[in-house]
Amino acid sequence: MTSSHFRPVALEHASRLINHGPTVLITTRHGAVRNIMAAAWSMPVEFTPPRVSVVIDKHTYTRELMQASGHFGLLIPGAALADLTYAVGSVSGRQGDKFARHGIEAFEGPALGLPLVEAGMAAWMECRWIPEPHTEDAYDTCFAEVLSAAADSRIFADGHWHFTEANRELHTLHHLGAGNFAVAGTPIKARGG
Amino acid sequence: MTSSHFRPVALEHASRLINHGPTVLITTRHGAVRNIMAAAWSMPVEFTPPRVSVVIDKHTYTRELMQASGHFGLLIPGAALADLTYAVGSVSGRQGDKFARHGIEAFEGPALGLPLVEAGMAAWMECRWIPEPHTEDAYDTCFAEVLSAAADSRIFADGHWHFTEANRELHTLHHLGAGNFAVAGTPIKARGG
Repeated sequence: MTSSHFRPVALEHASRLINHGPTVLITTRHGAVRNIMAAAWSMPVEFTPPRVSVVIDKHTYTRELMQASGHFGLLIPGAALADLTYAVGSVSGRQGDKFARHGIEAFEGPALGLPLVEAGMAAWMECRWIPEPHTEDAYDTCFAEVLSAAADSRIFADGHWHFTEANRELHTLHHLGAGNFAVAGTPIKARGG
Repeated sequence: MTSSHFRPVALEHASRLINHGPTVLITTRHGAVRNIMAAAWSMPVEFTPPRVSVVIDKHTYTRELMQASGHFGLLIPGAALADLTYAVGSVSGRQGDKFARHGIEAFEGPALGLPLVEAGMAAWMECRWIPEPHTEDAYDTCFAEVLSAAADSRIFADGHWHFTEANRELHTLHHLGAGNFAVAGTPIKARGG
């Protein structure tokens, strides 16, 4: 189940996994129920401790399960998973287990037991929800701290992303709207960087 | 000054300008003082009204000017501006006007008079700060509503991004860390999208 290419990411590097704005998949589990949905709107808010924010609509099943369990997982899909990413973002998990429907093989995360996936993913994180009732209510913006993270070492190693021609299937997806994604490609190094 | 390719973006489409996680430049103006800095961490939080959040460290000059004036601009640099994007993110505006230092030609925005730039940019927005003292203090996360927006019609038109080979210089930058950017490239359309 676990790809041999995945390696733990040091917590002080975890925020870098979403520094460049990729579309993510959010996984949740509460009791016997689990869910997975797509989210285009997430960002780091701190490197140390590694904290992130993500917009999760208050009417979603994911929001309900996240608040009930206090945790959620973030998966960063590679380019080859564009269809799946759009599919799990288009139907509610209240209508049935999306892992089963889409044949997604999940395993339990090391820190929180969240459903995680490695096949086709560039990275994953397990997060502990930090309740912020006002911003959740006013902006659907949820804060969390990353407790564990890992990445496919073919594209993220030693705390850095490495986008090359050889790992194109793991390049991250960036949702433009309505199922259209831009894939993060050509690396550029700025002068002085 | 104004590129003939820029066209207004309808406010209901403004959040799409940062839906895919590009690195942005934040501009501010208070009295005779103006500033520009880079920010990797921003996201939409709502389509209608168009609202965004952006992480602006509480020690930055930008934060001080934004809170003093109540407004800020967001510029979305194209790939050809990678060096400039990194440069204005590396030095504080307290040490002198970065527009002058880098030869950046700015004009006054139509809604709020913020310093805006079009040359080399894919889009710009003018935003009104929505004070949220707790999240600003705890997470440096600032919320705002977009009051005006425009984009280079060669890459964003009719409310949608169009990434092609012909507009590569306007493809958005996505900061990986330390001056390394991934450029949003290859478009993918998901099945069912």
